[in-house]
Amino acid sequence: MTKFVYGFHEGRGDMKLLLGGKGANLGEMTSIGLPVPEGFTITTETCNQYYREGSKLWDELQKEILTHLEELQKTTGKVLGDHKNPLLVSVRSGSSVSMPGMMDTILNLGLNDASVEGLAQATGNPRFAYDSYRRFMQMFGEVVLHIQKYKFDHILENKKTEKNIEEDTELTVDDLKDIIKKYKQVVQKESNMGFPQDTKEQLFMAIEAVFKSWENPRAKVYRKLNDIPASLGTAVNIQSMVFGNMGDASGTGVAFTRNPSNGEKKLFGEYLINAQGEDVVAGIRTPKPIEELKQRMPKVYQQFNDAAEILEKHYGDMQDIEFTIENEKLYMLQTRTGKRTALAAINIAVDMVKEGSLTKEEAIMRVEPAQIEQLLHPTFDEKALEEATIITTGLPASSGAASGKVYFNPEDVVAAKARGEKAILVRTETSPEDIEGMVAAEGILTSKGGMTSHAAVVARGMGKCCIAGAGEVRVDEPGKVFHVGKTTYKEGDYISLEGTKGMVYHGEIITKDPQLSGSFMELMTWVDKTRKLKIRTNADTSRDAEKAIEFGAEGIGLCRTEHMFFEESRITAVRKMILATNEADRKKALQQLLPMQRQDFVEIFKTMGERPVTVRLLDPPLHEFLPHEEKDIEQLAIKMEMPVKQLREVIEDLKEVNPMLGHRGCRLAVTYPEIYEMQVRAILEAAIIVKNEGGHVIPEIMIPLVGELKELQYNKDIVINTAKEVMEKNEASIDYLIGTMIEVPRAAITADEIAEEAEFFSFGTNDLTQMTYGYSRDDAGKFISQYKDKNILAKDPFQQIDRKGVGKLMEIAVELGKKARPSIKLGICGEHGGDPSSIEFCHLLGLEYVSCSPYRVPVARLAAAQSAIRHSN
Amino acid sequence: MTKFVYGFHEGRGDMKLLLGGKGANLGEMTSIGLPVPEGFTITTETCNQYYREGSKLWDELQKEILTHLEELQKTTGKVLGDHKNPLLVSVRSGSSVSMPGMMDTILNLGLNDASVEGLAQATGNPRFAYDSYRRFMQMFGEVVLHIQKYKFDHILENKKTEKNIEEDTELTVDDLKDIIKKYKQVVQKESNMGFPQDTKEQLFMAIEAVFKSWENPRAKVYRKLNDIPASLGTAVNIQSMVFGNMGDASGTGVAFTRNPSNGEKKLFGEYLINAQGEDVVAGIRTPKPIEELKQRMPKVYQQFNDAAEILEKHYGDMQDIEFTIENEKLYMLQTRTGKRTALAAINIAVDMVKEGSLTKEEAIMRVEPAQIEQLLHPTFDEKALEEATIITTGLPASSGAASGKVYFNPEDVVAAKARGEKAILVRTETSPEDIEGMVAAEGILTSKGGMTSHAAVVARGMGKCCIAGAGEVRVDEPGKVFHVGKTTYKEGDYISLEGTKGMVYHGEIITKDPQLSGSFMELMTWVDKTRKLKIRTNADTSRDAEKAIEFGAEGIGLCRTEHMFFEESRITAVRKMILATNEADRKKALQQLLPMQRQDFVEIFKTMGERPVTVRLLDPPLHEFLPHEEKDIEQLAIKMEMPVKQLREVIEDLKEVNPMLGHRGCRLAVTYPEIYEMQVRAILEAAIIVKNEGGHVIPEIMIPLVGELKELQYNKDIVINTAKEVMEKNEASIDYLIGTMIEVPRAAITADEIAEEAEFFSFGTNDLTQMTYGYSRDDAGKFISQYKDKNILAKDPFQQIDRKGVGKLMEIAVELGKKARPSIKLGICGEHGGDPSSIEFCHLLGLEYVSCSPYRVPVARLAAAQSAIRHSN
Repeated sequence: MTKFVYGFHEGRGDMKLLLGGKGANLGEMTSIGLPVPEGFTITTETCNQYYREGSKLWDELQKEILTHLEELQKTTGKVLGDHKNPLLVSVRSGSSVSMPGMMDTILNLGLNDASVEGLAQATGNPRFAYDSYRRFMQMFGEVVLHIQKYKFDHILENKKTEKNIEEDTELTVDDLKDIIKKYKQVVQKESNMGFPQDTKEQLFMAIEAVFKSWENPRAKVYRKLNDIPASLGTAVNIQSMVFGNMGDASGTGVAFTRNPSNGEKKLFGEYLINAQGEDVVAGIRTPKPIEELKQRMPKVYQQFNDAAEILEKHYGDMQDIEFTIENEKLYMLQTRTGKRTALAAINIAVDMVKEGSLTKEEAIMRVEPAQIEQLLHPTFDEKALEEATIITTGLPASSGAASGKVYFNPEDVVAAKARGEKAILVRTETSPEDIEGMVAAEGILTSKGGMTSHAAVVARGMGKCCIAGAGEVRVDEPGKVFHVGKTTYKEGDYISLEGTKGMVYHGEIITKDPQLSGSFMELMTWVDKTRKLKIRTNADTSRDAEKAIEFGAEGIGLCRTEHMFFEESRITAVRKMILATNEADRKKALQQLLPMQRQDFVEIFKTMGERPVTVRLLDPPLHEFLPHEEKDIEQLAIKMEMPVKQLREVIEDLKEVNPMLGHRGCRLAVTYPEIYEMQVRAILEAAIIVKNEGGHVIPEIMIPLVGELKELQYNKDIVINTAKEVMEKNEASIDYLIGTMIEVPRAAITADEIAEEAEFFSFGTNDLTQMTYGYSRDDAGKFISQYKDKNILAKDPFQQIDRKGVGKLMEIAVELGKKARPSIKLGICGEHGGDPSSIEFCHLLGLEYVSCSPYRVPVARLAAAQSAIRHSN
Repeated sequence: MTKFVYGFHEGRGDMKLLLGGKGANLGEMTSIGLPVPEGFTITTETCNQYYREGSKLWDELQKEILTHLEELQKTTGKVLGDHKNPLLVSVRSGSSVSMPGMMDTILNLGLNDASVEGLAQATGNPRFAYDSYRRFMQMFGEVVLHIQKYKFDHILENKKTEKNIEEDTELTVDDLKDIIKKYKQVVQKESNMGFPQDTKEQLFMAIEAVFKSWENPRAKVYRKLNDIPASLGTAVNIQSMVFGNMGDASGTGVAFTRNPSNGEKKLFGEYLINAQGEDVVAGIRTPKPIEELKQRMPKVYQQFNDAAEILEKHYGDMQDIEFTIENEKLYMLQTRTGKRTALAAINIAVDMVKEGSLTKEEAIMRVEPAQIEQLLHPTFDEKALEEATIITTGLPASSGAASGKVYFNPEDVVAAKARGEKAILVRTETSPEDIEGMVAAEGILTSKGGMTSHAAVVARGMGKCCIAGAGEVRVDEPGKVFHVGKTTYKEGDYISLEGTKGMVYHGEIITKDPQLSGSFMELMTWVDKTRKLKIRTNADTSRDAEKAIEFGAEGIGLCRTEHMFFEESRITAVRKMILATNEADRKKALQQLLPMQRQDFVEIFKTMGERPVTVRLLDPPLHEFLPHEEKDIEQLAIKMEMPVKQLREVIEDLKEVNPMLGHRGCRLAVTYPEIYEMQVRAILEAAIIVKNEGGHVIPEIMIPLVGELKELQYNKDIVINTAKEVMEKNEASIDYLIGTMIEVPRAAITADEIAEEAEFFSFGTNDLTQMTYGYSRDDAGKFISQYKDKNILAKDPFQQIDRKGVGKLMEIAVELGKKARPSIKLGICGEHGGDPSSIEFCHLLGLEYVSCSPYRVPVARLAAAQSAIRHSN
């Protein structure tokens, strides 16, 4: 038979999944002998069972609870509802993952019209007893009976006005009795039942309320935001009450064993005298710094300090502790690993290694990879931020903070930047044509598009703050304004973007530049020694490459050549190439592009030194390079000296129903081999130039979107023939590799064939995910969030590799690829290359490297090290 | 060492791949003792080697050829180029697959200024000798030296005019000598070389010319049209000449052992007296029916008749034989399996079983499955067709023949049909909105779209003639005209479509209804006993279902519910449903659709009797149901009583970048569960109605586009709950199955999980192919034909299952699915279900059934039987 209830003495810290964090830690604290009020925990599994039973506490469960209640009554010597020495308990939620404030708590449970008198007698403090009863009634009324808070507050306030007093503490016993009477009337009226006098009924109702709070809207939203599966469920902790509000020798508080903002090794927290826990949370009275307790109750402070040290040592990590003092006796109510900023996480981890309480490997495991990206971007000044007004929110598409004047098209942003202004680009969505404006902007705000939209991907690549899919923003690009509700922002108005959380603020906010601490540098040297995976970067320019090297990149895993095509000076030649009606004209246009591409590669190769560089040949469909707005089409027609009608026809002709699955990647080169010829020429000539200047580069030439061996063979021939010609002409010899993306499911399945011709594979997991799931990443935003709400997808597969499906294809490809060519180089260059879970998967697959945007490089280094540690045996 | 040359005595019929069809058969005929002029064959592999050597005859090959030439000289007692008794040879191409008239032939090789005299002496017929020389020079000039034909013809015609004669035979020796002199001048002028007098040089040049003709444009086009791989290469046959033009005791002819049009068992062919083979082909003189030879040369006729019988018996199939008579001596020049119509193929196969010369299984293998679809559709009257003018051509998207007046939108077609007119729907492309017009039309012509475009798929389903992607047609839908070149066709003008070849004709052409012969019926009973696969049909209406049953369908494998939504009477309710802004309004609109869908299912279930019916729940994205043209949008806004602007916004909002990978299939039902609820209700209520009337139906409810187990679970819950409710309400019990399409790669890879919840899988190979290759079938037309030209794809994967990639995923899914649920039912409902090679693959996979459009059902039955025979051991 399943055991649904555990006494605290039965619980241990490693039973979190079953007992929840709070329950497991109460058990653990009990086991190491710290002063913990006694109690028991109803397991998280019970919560799931509760929903399966149709939201009812079934008979056997009730019996099991009552058995533990009796035991608790025995050990405390008190009885629930007793009119002499009543037991009071708290009923608290506690899931295995911390969800602070999201679920419900009931304190002082066990009071009724009889036991309140018992409490008054037992404590000799009637005022305390009636105040506790009043508090309990209000809490129970709100949490269990769902009566609106103000209805109780109103009665309390009226009484205080009537008595002309300010503080609750000034209320007399009679005042409280009167308030209780009126509370009862409210309960009767609002819930159609009298306030329950049966204390066991109180207990069961409270337990149900906690279970139900697992599915309340704010808990659901929190879970969704934090990727917490609904199947975890919450435990319920029933604990005998201790009272911080029994007078001036009592109190309650919260403290961290180290400073959670910067990691400083010093108790950090606050306390309130004569108060219960919710008074600290409610913020009505201002708590005092924990240091002051030292003067006020030196013994208790010392005792707490010792307990805190024991706990930190015991758990081996910084703790967040709740405590209560009841008549100068200290009780530990809760301990848990303290949340901390990235800065604190790093400083604490490194300090603890120096203190000898952590190994370097343990320290590496202590820092959340996703968090450290914060450290690399500017942030807003905290003070200034507090005063700022939020306009709206959107998806946190790319971290960082930015302030500037709004502009609605890339040209205006470029012009503003030229005038020395800071500009924010605001668009419905961005497209590759906007690239120059994106480079010039401080930050980017779009009203549509998801976490892997064009704006998001490009901004992350640049380490530029971006908020995407801000649905409330209605952008009027031609009118150069945007609206949020009834407010309108015109061109030139200031706004500020906070990309880590996706907040859009009114006006200008001062930003702080990032600073990388010594501890960070130290930790990263340990990280680099530990990891097995190499970390490369996705970089299209030497500027990106420089940034990435600074962050520790060991090569370029993906240099997209198309972004180079969008620059003002080049786009005309690109368009001439596309609009050419014969091979000769097309070659002429390509001839104009050649020196520019060559120069790009020269710069990148020089920047990268001996580090490997993977260059992907042209990938996007040609229509991406042509304008789509009537005005732009007309201008282009004039420039190209062709009739507008004809140009419109070409554009219409290039349109595709599903461009994602259309004429792009190596398919383009089958139609127009001269494009890849030009690109290969540029790569090889650049390599020769760099070599002649004493450099050393082995370009890795990557052919995208291969799905069939012969596609690769066809394009490989182009590469080999062009390279041969360039080398012969220049009397030079350059080593280079030819490989392919594995991004089409068929390529994964036929990877053995493909590996016969490819010297390396780079997994393009963005497209592979799109095709394996059949989700267009441009469109899936609509239903993926519903899928997460409805528990159909635990994770967005564009953020984290779906190991079961996409991952399985990768496994197949790795196995087949290695079988056909044991020396094959394997890497990944999709957006997943910066995601810790995906990096772990790549480690397990035995890839040589992951490649990610420059600002994710440190994240990837850390995640790779953690993967190596986690799977070291 | 590779042997490149085989004497005829070394060849056998089963060496076709190496010796080509002609070479192998000459060998075979030699071996069975028929009178075949001696010679040797250069292998098909030599052809490939020739291209690898840079289009040169390498030394060793030349030596090997000369060795065989010497042998030939020995056996014939003649010497090439001899001025007394010269050997003359023919040099003919011959690949392993028949490509009639596509490659080159040179006759009478070995004549030069000296040997022509030898020939004159040896035959005692100088006129014959000089005429042969003239013919040889012309043929060599054209074929080897690429001199235009008219330059020779001109000289010949001039001479005839000068002499005032009509027939070549009237030319004297002197005339011929004069012509030869002038021919030499032409050769000198055009090729910058004298006519080669070295007969070995002649031979080598001729051999090279044959090899080169393998890559001539018409051969390439023919191979592409007939899916013949370029790697086969052609053999070259060098055979000593016999002469049908040595006077009135000589002649040449061609005959089939049975009638190739209808299969009648009787020699069928024609001959010419005093002529060489090319005279028959050239069509200058009218040949005589073969029967007349019986009177003219009874002995030779008898001898030929005997040989023909021997050959038919020997090969066990109807033969197509070339012969020559030289001075009353019969020579067999070639025999090959005769090409025949579908009707003849069936009649011959069934007759030969009755004659005892074939087993039923062999007879089944004798009929080409793809061919028999011809028999099911109307055809044009042959005479009328001969006189018809071709306007243009397009893709042969759906077989059959149709004549009618052109109309440019579905409403006009429906109206025309109502007036009793026959109408052809002409559109740029069709969309689901056009469905009623497509039903009413006799045939459909589109200027865009490929073999799997909407028009093609729907028309095939209806068995309606359709020509898609007729690129020369420029359709002006609003103007109600279409243009081809400078000709314009207006609404109401007659055109005719021939869908088997994709021909568009001017005016009206009389059609003949199809008639299924007794032999056809007999063959199909053998077929049905032989096959292992069940054949179901894709049918959306009871009309389709009836047709399919007539053609032998054993169930419905795919009933698409969306086509039902497009009917005039329903589309308004569908649109209301889509435009509803809340669940209540949506349900109200669905409530209107319910009785209509229910009635559809009642009719289908009744038609199908006890046969299984798989119903697919709604699949396409919602935007397909909304209008896209401004005029229609305005009208709809009025009808829906909503502002046009708002409607436009809804339509804009539903637009997707890649609709193929968008919000459709079961994803829709996650957002709007009420849609599937309504559909399941309609299915179950219909089943109850049919059951109550004594019918019997076990609906198979199919959930489309599942890629993740939980998607299926979510939708399965909807089905189960709705079904339960309907059954309880009606106090009825209906057995039904719940299954899913396997059409997303991820579903195939995780098929074990999915099979836990699915009682059947139906492979949706259209979408599976799209996602596995990453080809949008709406867009891939652009590059797939290039891919075939450039040998990157051997086959269009949308026509024939790609076994290596898509097929591999199917294999994985079958294996995983059966492991998790051994009883799982497996079928296929993609367009591939009607393709013989794909059917064979399904047989090998062990599927239970294939499902295809009604008119493909007989094709599928035959293909399934052939697969069973082919893989019977």
